[in-house]
This record gives sequence, structure tokens and C-alpha cells, in this order.
Amino acid sequence: MVNNHLAEKLVEWRRDFHQYPETGFLEMRTASIVASILDQLGFELQMGKNVMSPDHCMGKPNDTVTKQHLEWARENGAHQDYIDYFSEGYTGIVATLDTNKNGPTVAYRFDMDALPINESDKPEHVPFKEGFRSILADKMHACGHDAHTSIGLGLASLIAENKDNLCGRIKLIFQPAEEGTRGAKSMVEANVVSDVDYFIASHVGIGVPQDHVVAANNGFLATSKIDISFKGKASHAGGDPEKGDNALLAAATASLNMSGISRHSEGSTRINIGELHAGSGRNIIPDSAALKVETRGDTSDINCYVKKQVESIAVGAATMYNVDYNLEVVGEGKSCNCSREVASVIHECAQESDKITESVLESNDSAGSEDATFFMEEVQKNGGFATYCVFGTELAAGHHNEQFDINEDTLLQAVEILYESCMKLSDLN
Amino acid sequence: MVNNHLAEKLVEWRRDFHQYPETGFLEMRTASIVASILDQLGFELQMGKNVMSPDHCMGKPNDTVTKQHLEWARENGAHQDYIDYFSEGYTGIVATLDTNKNGPTVAYRFDMDALPINESDKPEHVPFKEGFRSILADKMHACGHDAHTSIGLGLASLIAENKDNLCGRIKLIFQPAEEGTRGAKSMVEANVVSDVDYFIASHVGIGVPQDHVVAANNGFLATSKIDISFKGKASHAGGDPEKGDNALLAAATASLNMSGISRHSEGSTRINIGELHAGSGRNIIPDSAALKVETRGDTSDINCYVKKQVESIAVGAATMYNVDYNLEVVGEGKSCNCSREVASVIHECAQESDKITESVLESNDSAGSEDATFFMEEVQKNGGFATYCVFGTELAAGHHNEQFDINEDTLLQAVEILYESCMKLSDLN
Amino acid sequence: MVNNHLAEKLVEWRRDFHQYPETGFLEMRTASIVASILDQLGFELQMGKNVMSPDHCMGKPNDTVTKQHLEWARENGAHQDYIDYFSEGYTGIVATLDTNKNGPTVAYRFDMDALPINESDKPEHVPFKEGFRSILADKMHACGHDAHTSIGLGLASLIAENKDNLCGRIKLIFQPAEEGTRGAKSMVEANVVSDVDYFIASHVGIGVPQDHVVAANNGFLATSKIDISFKGKASHAGGDPEKGDNALLAAATASLNMSGISRHSEGSTRINIGELHAGSGRNIIPDSAALKVETRGDTSDINCYVKKQVESIAVGAATMYNVDYNLEVVGEGKSCNCSREVASVIHECAQESDKITESVLESNDSAGSEDATFFMEEVQKNGGFATYCVFGTELAAGHHNEQFDINEDTLLQAVEILYESCMKLSDLN
Amino acid sequence: MVNNHLAEKLVEWRRDFHQYPETGFLEMRTASIVASILDQLGFELQMGKNVMSPDHCMGKPNDTVTKQHLEWARENGAHQDYIDYFSEGYTGIVATLDTNKNGPTVAYRFDMDALPINESDKPEHVPFKEGFRSILADKMHACGHDAHTSIGLGLASLIAENKDNLCGRIKLIFQPAEEGTRGAKSMVEANVVSDVDYFIASHVGIGVPQDHVVAANNGFLATSKIDISFKGKASHAGGDPEKGDNALLAAATASLNMSGISRHSEGSTRINIGELHAGSGRNIIPDSAALKVETRGDTSDINCYVKKQVESIAVGAATMYNVDYNLEVVGEGKSCNCSREVASVIHECAQESDKITESVLESNDSAGSEDATFFMEEVQKNGGFATYCVFGTELAAGHHNEQFDINEDTLLQAVEILYESCMKLSDLN
Repeated sequence: MVNNHLAEKLVEWRRDFHQYPETGFLEMRTASIVASILDQLGFELQMGKNVMSPDHCMGKPNDTVTKQHLEWARENGAHQDYIDYFSEGYTGIVATLDTNKNGPTVAYRFDMDALPINESDKPEHVPFKEGFRSILADKMHACGHDAHTSIGLGLASLIAENKDNLCGRIKLIFQPAEEGTRGAKSMVEANVVSDVDYFIASHVGIGVPQDHVVAANNGFLATSKIDISFKGKASHAGGDPEKGDNALLAAATASLNMSGISRHSEGSTRINIGELHAGSGRNIIPDSAALKVETRGDTSDINCYVKKQVESIAVGAATMYNVDYNLEVVGEGKSCNCSREVASVIHECAQESDKITESVLESNDSAGSEDATFFMEEVQKNGGFATYCVFGTELAAGHHNEQFDINEDTLLQAVEILYESCMKLSDLN
Repeated sequence: MVNNHLAEKLVEWRRDFHQYPETGFLEMRTASIVASILDQLGFELQMGKNVMSPDHCMGKPNDTVTKQHLEWARENGAHQDYIDYFSEGYTGIVATLDTNKNGPTVAYRFDMDALPINESDKPEHVPFKEGFRSILADKMHACGHDAHTSIGLGLASLIAENKDNLCGRIKLIFQPAEEGTRGAKSMVEANVVSDVDYFIASHVGIGVPQDHVVAANNGFLATSKIDISFKGKASHAGGDPEKGDNALLAAATASLNMSGISRHSEGSTRINIGELHAGSGRNIIPDSAALKVETRGDTSDINCYVKKQVESIAVGAATMYNVDYNLEVVGEGKSCNCSREVASVIHECAQESDKITESVLESNDSAGSEDATFFMEEVQKNGGFATYCVFGTELAAGHHNEQFDINEDTLLQAVEILYESCMKLSDLN
Repeated sequence: MVNNHLAEKLVEWRRDFHQYPETGFLEMRTASIVASILDQLGFELQMGKNVMSPDHCMGKPNDTVTKQHLEWARENGAHQDYIDYFSEGYTGIVATLDTNKNGPTVAYRFDMDALPINESDKPEHVPFKEGFRSILADKMHACGHDAHTSIGLGLASLIAENKDNLCGRIKLIFQPAEEGTRGAKSMVEANVVSDVDYFIASHVGIGVPQDHVVAANNGFLATSKIDISFKGKASHAGGDPEKGDNALLAAATASLNMSGISRHSEGSTRINIGELHAGSGRNIIPDSAALKVETRGDTSDINCYVKKQVESIAVGAATMYNVDYNLEVVGEGKSCNCSREVASVIHECAQESDKITESVLESNDSAGSEDATFFMEEVQKNGGFATYCVFGTELAAGHHNEQFDINEDTLLQAVEILYESCMKLSDLN
Repeated sequence: MVNNHLAEKLVEWRRDFHQYPETGFLEMRTASIVASILDQLGFELQMGKNVMSPDHCMGKPNDTVTKQHLEWARENGAHQDYIDYFSEGYTGIVATLDTNKNGPTVAYRFDMDALPINESDKPEHVPFKEGFRSILADKMHACGHDAHTSIGLGLASLIAENKDNLCGRIKLIFQPAEEGTRGAKSMVEANVVSDVDYFIASHVGIGVPQDHVVAANNGFLATSKIDISFKGKASHAGGDPEKGDNALLAAATASLNMSGISRHSEGSTRINIGELHAGSGRNIIPDSAALKVETRGDTSDINCYVKKQVESIAVGAATMYNVDYNLEVVGEGKSCNCSREVASVIHECAQESDKITESVLESNDSAGSEDATFFMEEVQKNGGFATYCVFGTELAAGHHNEQFDINEDTLLQAVEILYESCMKLSDLN
């Protein structure tokens, strides 16, 4: 492998994506570029609604936002030959390479979306210093998905180059909207992994040191992201207070009571009302309120328990104040239980790499939530094996921080280990 | 009239009742004595369930309490010939005198019950000093109903003595359980006032000075007394917190949200959660909670608005915590609108009395709640006329205070004015 | 009087102000036009900080907003000779006419500000149909202050025309920022009414029918408008929930507990949390929250009681969640007690008018809140007399509604009655 | 060892204690019997305030309760020669046997108190069937402390019998008031374990199966038991609501907000408001409220975090409602970290026993809270070693259940293993 050249390409891709960040279900420019490269490499492409069930996209922006962003993408470097596949915001891609030799189906998942964060312009912030800071206010790759997309393209390059040495089928899955755990479910529902024997998702950073690898990360919390709104009746607070139905107080009491949902004896829980917006004027009984709620649990069952309480409390609060309520699940992630069968392969590859100083087979450290867990559960349900691995990297600041940055050495490390795993897994028959 | 003798009797009766106070639906000793006197005076008596609808007795003590009190009454001076009529706690009496001459039916209401208050034993407290302090801990005539019962007997005496000068029919209603506004409704439902043309209820004190009279008191707030209980599921707070259904938190959130029921633009409201008792141990998720709630409103409609909110909030709180709830109305009073037709008669009698220095036709001063309003509404609905008058008296301390005491001069004043009103009204045809 | 011409001018002025609405402390275009007219009529003018104490302007917009609006005013018809007096947002004017004859000082107050409401563009809405709908989205004269300003100019015209028939001094006060009860206090603190003997404020509409007048409106509730903010500490809701200090929950519990502030036995109260905005993202412990609160009371004392509870609850909520809080009073109005001495004059003038079909001396109907009450209290404190009168008008929709509109006949009625009152009062010596 | 006889004695003692259960700080009869036996066996005794710091007894009953119970104890079999040592409710005993040979100080802790539970009288309940059911309503050994006390006496017997084979000093600690984690701290503060090298606490049951042993139980949660009271001001809810300071609402809002204390990322937490009692009458603004609160945490630090939030919320609630508050810690337990050095000895002894089928060195299963952790922390702080072991037993029903009962075979098993550990440890020098 002429990996010097690959190393350069990885950095180039990552910085390009970094500079043009796109949030969930709007990764049109990114997807169009990804598609053009994969197409050139000889992968068979499925795109858009073919790989995403519209009914299971959670928290997708509305049409106006989607159309506006399409214009922006066209004007900011989207690949003109592919952009149309993604124009409605169904930005997922599945790239398949069939070796036409007997062998298992091995899949890799990469996520592409950015966050609604305003990137730092401090002189010491490398993306600023080196000229690839986000060109957009309030959008930033502050979690490393730019790196993930780049790693996916690097893996595709090596696979294409060496396809004669591989057996079975390889599927590269480029997923939209991992932030908010919104996109994976729609790809699962479109049967993207129904035929997969081995599945590997991965992430850079999340607490793992530079040059370390975790082959199986079981620490993800199951989660639900829930939007709740209350609709009451306005009236003049001085003249007719009794004629109003107070949505603000419904939301306030819902928030307080949700925060008090009982702990669970079988594992950790989390509940957060991250935002509350209510009312339209000081002297008007507030007729509307909106809450952004997030639940988590050590297991999907425990998260489900919290979510059920949230629902009861929303109903109760609405009853108390005679207001209507609407409850929409806009994101969801599961807990996971990595398969030793595939994790051990990653572990082996990491141990064999001369760039990796330490590999850990399994970790239970809590690491937020992930919707790759939907793919994992589906693969395992069908008798396949799945893992979630982590490639350590030195971080300039924590994930979701405006000064987040990675050590780019991790890009090539990840590509090589994933490629080696592909070699080993495609042979496992 | 040989009113010197009557004045002595009034004091004697009042002090006897004062010393043996009986709370709502337990006025057995009192009622037996009242019945014996009225019987002797020649009134026709209806008693117990004949004048009280069991289905409409609110907040009646349970059988055990009732039986225990019956024993006490038998041992403490109840009249043996009459006590059996009241043994189940239906302690109401209607005493009728029919003149057999054409004329209207005129009714007077007197309440007989005491309060669960421990009477003062300070040397300056007259009932203590003069030896008629309550013989019972935690029971006391601290509102003046001892005086009312005595006045009722005095009025009966004068009427009996002078029945030849009267026309129509006179009904004297001795009502149990006015405290907590619990007893009147059951007598109305037993049709006690269906045939009444003129109705007069009265009270001593309540802010009116000695030797003053208010002929029409319209200041009563409509009220509901509501017991709410929540029943959840206990579990160990350390070991299985999620298995409990928390009744204490349901009660706490109900209390807070009820307190926030919106003001009403058309009049005053009140809401009080007077008591909350919940839980059975520090380390157990509380499975039970009980609230004592009271609502009030300037009008019956406004009170009804508050009561409806209370209900919604109870339902909502139960929904929030997945607990059952029970809501029982244990007392109710209405607002009132005194009839000028009968109030003016009282006003006239008061003005004619040489003992009264000032008579006010109508007052709107807020004066708590009263269930005589049930009688009044019923009489007015049937085309009759009703008023609620107040006989001023000098108070040693406020109503419901452990040092409450009246000026006994008021007894005779009240009897005479009521008797004079009876003379005038029985002639109004 | 050639009132035909005046009637036309009144409509013209009113429609011009209606089309160019300016919200509180931004009435620059309006004030510049008012100043130019009054100047021309021969009134002596005091403007800006000379008649407004900067320290007592409540809820004044910040410099950026003020400067932006100045540009707009310059480009949209502000009078270039006067606009500079109001460039910092101190838009009050006091116009004085001294007859140099012995006599009292008589003052009239007119308010000039609009509301942040988007005016209707329905075909039946007269301002739309006749072409004088607001040119600005989200700003509208929906309370009638455009009419008040026009009436003030009409009154000035008549006074100027007839000054030889008047005695004493006449002061016309054009006040900014009545909405939110924010502007009057600053004019009182600048001693604008220290020398006033008779003071008259007025309003069109507020429930009074066309061709009716109320000479003394005592129904205003005292009020406080309070902005409360909580500042906590953000942290990741999944990873470090315990490191956050939750401002949203502080705001929610503050809202609930404020709503439960006890009723007052001496009069009506109101409490409304009109808006609550908290948090910055679903998965972040919310570090900020802002509440818009409004209290009212039948009297200034009762309002003060509610306000004090609001403060205690804000402190308590901040303590509970270890967050900082800030509480700012951004508006205040008092209750009022109109002086019979001046109300009777208005009543007389209304009775004498052939355009008015009914005049009511005094009304206690609740009619929201008003900061003219600051002027009234000050005048009465100094031994003067004050009233607040209402000129009935047929409304297309209620005050503060997007379809609000008046019957323009009321303009001339009001001008004539106020002028007649001026004649009578200036003679009262 | 003639353990047949010992086995009988163990059952006899246990059943006697079972029949006469005494709750915390009232174990007078129990302690007097324990003292008499230990005295006879030749142990040197320290009792009462000599082994308990009065300032550190948490949640001790008041004098009246203590005196009443003393009477009961005297009349129900207390040993007359020893009862006086315990008459004030300081019921702890430390029995020391000094071998006068070089060697370590080895201590064993046994707890003696019962629970406020009404024991079952179902026919299948063995204590009922066999005639040793609690003679007291509402008191019951439902946790096994009767067994513990019996085991302590059995161990004492074997030690006394075999003292020539032992070295160093042996201390047997009989502790009051473990329920509610109230008694241990006072014994630690009286320096009862300052000189101890090896410390062993033990419990029967708590989830460990019959014939199994756990040598080191690390699963205890740190805990605080907190009584909170609020004192406000009463007033008439109808007449003067604004004059009251509402303690019930302070308690309700405290309860809700405490339940919402944030989860901790480093381990489990618990918060329970087990009881809330507030108010004195439906129509009175409640002037008093009392809460029974319990916090727990995986570690003492985490529990401390929860406790600190509880305090802030109590202060905040009091501030909101202008009421006074009082917060008293009435029980406390720590988390523990058993010493391998002593746990391994128990593990060895259990493995060597032919009655034990399985021994586990260490368990982290959550098992409520324990105040033996105070002794453990103190011993470890001074360089000693401590463990908490569990002797499995078949339970008729869970701990704290009215049908709780143990398999009495466990008594002798425990005595033998503890005795063997004593042999080994006293030799460890």
C-alpha cells in the first residue's frame, strides 16, 4: 500500500468536510462528494430513499430548511452529478462491493453529520490556524464525524485497490443524522443490514488515548429524544385569567415531575429537560409551551421505563391544566452488547498494528449514546455479529466543544485496522 | 312575657350545652334534651332520618365513633326517652307548631354542633371561672352554637306561650354538623323546608358589635370541602425504587398545582390544602397520601370553577404517578342572596327593640361560609323568602379560638327579635 | 370653532400615527411631528431628558435597538428639526401655555406608543381597506394611543386658538411607553406635574360604548412587571449531570410556586408568568432561564404584597438549584382614586355635549393597569386633583387584538369635552 | 465442642429475643440478658454511656418513651442485676476477653434492635406456630438481629470455653439501633474500636442462599436519614389567607424538588421522602410540616452530594414561603471497602466448614445500608482490617416483611465460622 498518499488524502478529505459542516438530514454536499468517490472506486451505490425509510427518519428538518440548504450545497461545492439523489434530505448511502466469491457480508458504518455549534476562532485552534475552520456560523464538526467520513473513504480506497484478495461482500454504510440519534433507524427499516454477517461501527476519541484501541465498547446508554408541546388557551392575565388554559404551568410542572422520575435499581438512568419555551407575552395567560426532553438508561429496558414515566407525566400535566399535548420521539438509541466474535478480530488487528500501543478488548465506560446500536441489534437478531470500536485520539477539547479537534494521525490508523479486519472477516467462512 | 325567668333559662341551657359539647352528627345528648323540651312545649316532632337524608350527610363519622359517642351521651346526661331517636348520628330535629289558622309557614334554623378544639383553662376565661368549661379535651363550643340552640329553645318557649296570637305554621329546625358545612344539605334533601314561606337563619357574633343587628348578611362565600386520597404502591426505596408508585409525590404536586389555580375575574376565590399526610416509613416509597382541601368563591359558580380545577389536578397528579385517587366532597356551602321581604321584617323588629342600638339592613362583609345557604336557596327556589341575620355580641376572643366566649345578654335579645319577627311574619298573608 | 376642519385633521393625524407605529421609548417619529405642531401652535416645549429621569425609565430598549430605530425614523417621515431631541429614546414632551393670567395649572396626559403586534391584513379590517395599515410587521397601534396623540394635538389646537379665554397655565404631556406601564414614572421623577392643580388622563374604548363617557375610572389595578433571570452552570446531561446547576428547573419551580401565591383578603390579586425561556440544547443541563412576570392588585399595597412574595420565591428557587438570579422591575402602575373635584367637571362637560348620550360619574370596572396613576398620585399628594376619564368608542375588536380599530367619531368628542373641561377648570380659582 | 447443646442454646436465645423485640435505643431487656450471660462467661463488661457517646446517638427516642419502655422491660423478663446500666436507653455493651498473651485485638459486632412492624399471625408463620411470635403489636424482629444477638452469645460461649487456645484480645460489641443506621457512630465516637486490629461484622440472609457465605460484602450504599421540619404561621384560610406562612407548600415543593436531584455520573444515588405530615385543619393555612428523608449513594462522597442538595432545597423552600426550617440527621451509614486481609480468613473458614456448600470471597451486590461501616472505616483508618460477611439463610419472606423468618441452622454455622476466624486471627501476629 502506498499509504503516504492515502494519509494525505485522508487529511484532505477530513479538512474539506470540516470546513463545510452539514447537520443531520442535510449532509447533501458531503454525500454527493462521498458518492462520487465511491462510484469512481467501483462500488455499487444505493442512495436516498432506497436506503432510508422516510417514516422512520426522526427529527428531520422541514421542507423550507431542506430546500434552503440544497441551494447552499449547490453553491458550496456539492458534486453536481450526485446532489439530486439527496435533494430531499435523505442523505444516506450504501456502497456495496461484491467479490463474487463465497464469503460473508461485512459492513462498516460511518456517520457524516455535524453539530449546531459555533466553531472557535481562537488563534490556537488548529482548524482556524490552518484555514479549515467551518465557513458557517453555528455549524461545526465538533464530534469527529468529518474524520469518520474520511476514514470510510480511505477504507473504500484500500478495499477497491485490493478487492482480488477479498471474499464475500463488503458494504460501506454512510449514515446521516447520528447526532440526536435520529438517522440509523431509518436505514435499518430500509433493510440495509438484513443480509449482514459482520458489522462494525467506530468512533474516534470519546476518552480513549492516542494510539489506543477499544475493540468493543459496551458503554452506550439507551436513549430517547422527545419533543413535547402543550397547547392551551390564551386570555388576558389581568382581565380574564380564569378563561385561559395555562400551557406554561403545564410545562413547568411536567419538567419538575419528570426530573423526579425514580431511579432504577438495575442500572443508571438520566432525564434532562434541556429546553423549555413557553408563552407569548407578559400579560397573556400562556397558551403554548415546548419542551426538549432526553432520557437515558443503562439498557434499552431501563430507558424504556424512564420514557414511559415521561409520557405519563406529560399526560398528567395536560390533564391538570386542561391543555392539549403532543409528544414526538425525535431520536432514539439502544444499549449494546458487542459480539466477541467480531470484537476479537478488531482486537487482533489492533494488536498487530505497529502504530497502536495498547488494545483493550472490551470497555464498559459510559460514552453517551449512539444509534449505530440499531444496526447492531438488527444484525445480532439475524444471527450476525456486531461490534462498536473506538480509535483513540488526542483531543484539543472535549466532544461538542467549540475547540474540539483531533490528532489526524488517527485517520490512517483507523483505516488500516478496519481494512485488516475486513481481510480477516471476509475469509471467515 | 316573664322574660326574667326566660333570661335565666337561656343562660342555664347555653351553659349546659357549653359544658357538654358534641361535634357534627354526634349531637345526641344535645338533641335528646332539645327534643324533650320541645315535646313538653307542645311541638310536633320529627327526628333522625325522618328529617335527614342519609345519602346527603357529608363527612359523617364512622359507626365505631358514633357508637362510642352514644355510650358517652347516655352516661353524661342525655335524655333517656329521646336518645334512641339519635343513636345512629342522625341528630336533626324539626319541631312544628300548627296554629290551625290560615297563614304562612315560617321557619327558623338553629345549629347545635361544637368544634374539635381544646378549651382554655386560663383563669380569666369565663366558662372556666364560672365552672362550665367543656368537660371534654379537644371538644368545645367555640363558635356559639351552644347559644344558638339555647336561643332556639327560648323562641320555642315564647311561641308556645303565645300560640293563640299566631297564624299559619311555625317550624323550628335544629341542625347538626354546620361546622364543615356538612349537615344542612341532608335536611334540605329530606324536604324539611319544601313548604316554607319565610326562612330565617341566624348567628351570634361574627364581627357585629354588641347590641347591633344585621338583618341580611350576604357575605358568605360558597365553599366545598374535599377529601382527596391517593393510593400507589410501596417498594423499598433503596432496593427497588422503580417498583413503587409514589403517592406522596402525587399529593405534593397536586398541592402545589392546586394552590396555583387561577384567580377569577368575577370575584374572590380561596383554595387551601389544609392537611397532607403521606407515607409509612422513611425507606419505603410512599403508597398512600391524603389531602384535606377547601375551596371558596364569592358565588356558587365561582366556587364551582375552583372545585372543577381541583378535580382536574387530582386526576392529573394520579396520572403522573400511576396511582389511584379518590375524591370525596365532605362539606358544601353556597353563596346567598337574602330576600329583602323577610330581612326588612328583622330590621324593623331590631329597630323597635329597646335593647338594640343599631340595626343594619344588609351587609356584604365576608363572614366565612355557612350551609344554611342550602335552606335559603331551596326556600327561594320555591318562591319563598329567606334571610340570614346576625345578632352582635361582645367576644372574648375570635370564633374558633380556645378562649372564645360571648356576652350572654345577646341570648334574650335574639329570642325577642326572632319572636317579634314570627309575630309579624305569621300575619303576612 | 371650525370643527369640520379639526375633525379632518384629527383623522389625518391619527391615521398617520397608525401607519407608522413606534413602540415604547422609540416614539421618535411621532414625537418629532407632535413637537413641530405644538411649536407652531405657540406652546413652550420641554423635551427628552428635560422631562424624563433616565434613572426611572423602566424596560427601555438597549442602544443598538434605539439607534436602529432612529435611522428608521429619519427615513420614514420624522420631522428633521425635532428628531434630534429624541434620538436617545427619551421621547417625552411637555408643552406649556401660560395665559399670564391668574389661574390654576391644568394638565392633560396623552400616550403615544404602539404594541409589538402584527396588524391584520384581512379585507374587512378598515386600516387595511383604507390604506393606513401599519407599514411594519409586528408593530401596531392596537390600543388606541394613535387616537390619544391625535386628540392631544386637537386639544392643543383649540387651546391655542382660544387662549385669550383661558386663565392659568395649561400643560399637555405626551408620554412614551405606557404599554408595560414603563414611561410615566420617569416623567413624574422629572417633576413634570409638581406644579399641577388639575390633572386629566384619558383613554378611548376599554369597554365603554360609543357616545358614552366615564368621568372617573377607578378600576385600574396596581401592577408590577418583573423580569427574572436565573444563571446556572451547563454540563453534559448524560456524562456529568451532577456538575450542572439547573436554571430551567429553578425557573419551573419558581413559576409553579409564584402561581400559588396566596390570595389576599382585602382585594383582588393577579400573578402571571407570561413567558419562560430556558436552556440551550436537549442534552445540556440548562444554565440559563428567563421569566416575564406580572403582578397586580386592587391597591398598590396588595400589589406590593404579591411582588414581595415573587421576590422571596425567586430567591428560594435560586437557592434550591445553586444558581444566580437577577430580578428587574421593568414596569409599574399604581391603583387610583379619582378626585371628585375634577371628575365632576368632566361629567358636566359630557352631559352638556350634544354628541354624548350617557355620562357616568364613576366606574370601578376593572380595566387593566395604567401608569398615568403615577401622575395622579403625585398630583393628589401635592394637594391637587386628578381623574382618569374614558371616551367610549365602538371597537372592531378588543384592545391588543390584531383587528383592533376605533370609531373615529370619538376623536372630536374627546377633544371637545377636554377643551370644555379646560375652560371650566382654568376658571376655578 | 459439644455443639449439640450449643445449637439448642442458640435457638432458645434467638426465640426468646424474637418474642420480646425491642426497637433502637430501647434494647434494655435484651442487653440485660446479654450482659448477664457474658458476665457469667467471664468477659469484662463496659456498658451504657461508657461505650456510647450521647452526643452521637442519632434518632434516640425521648425520655417519656424511654421511661415507659424501661417499665415494660422490668415487667417482661429483663435481668434485674443489669437493667439499671441501660435504663436511659444507652444499651450498648462491649465485652472484652484478654488472653494476656501477645496477639492482635479482634472484634466482632452484633446488632440487637427490632423493627416497628406488626408480626404475622398466619398459621404458616413459624414463630406463630411454634409460639414465639412477638408479644408486642407493632414490634418485630423482622431483619434477623435476634439471630445476630444469639450468634454473638454463641461465639462468646465458644471463646470462653477455649480461651486458652487464643492469643491477644477479643472484643464482642453488642450494638443498639442499627435500624435507621443510628447506633454505630456513637460507639465509634466512644472509642470502642480504636484499639482493634481485625474487625468483623456479619448479617444473616440478605439474598445469600442457605449454606452459602459471602466473606466480604462491599455492596452497602452510603446513606443519610434526615428529618426536616418547617414552621410557618397559621391563619384562617377563608378570612386572612395572606397572613399565613404556608409550611405545607414549603414541604410539598421541597419534596418535589428533592426528588429531582440530579443523578450522579460516578454511581447510583437514591432519594426518598418517605413521609410528609403537614397542617392542622382544612380551613387553616398550615403552619407546620415534617418530612422523613433518606438519601443514598454508591460511595460516601456521592451520598454527601445528594445530602448537600437536600439541604439547599430545604433552605430554598423555607425562603420561598417565609417559614423556618429545621434539619436533623437522624441516621447515617457509609459505603465500605472490605479488607482482603480479614475477608480471606472468613473465606478460608467457610471453605473448611463441612456445613457450607459455597463461599464467595467478595460481592458487590447492593444490599441496602449498614452503620457497621462506621466501625470499619475507623478500624481501617487506624491501620487495621475490617470485613462485613454474610451467612446465607433460607428466608420465609424478605427482610422487613411481617412474615420474615430464618432457617435456624444458620445460627450454628455462623458461630462456628466466626469462632474459627477468631482462632486464625488471634494467631496472626
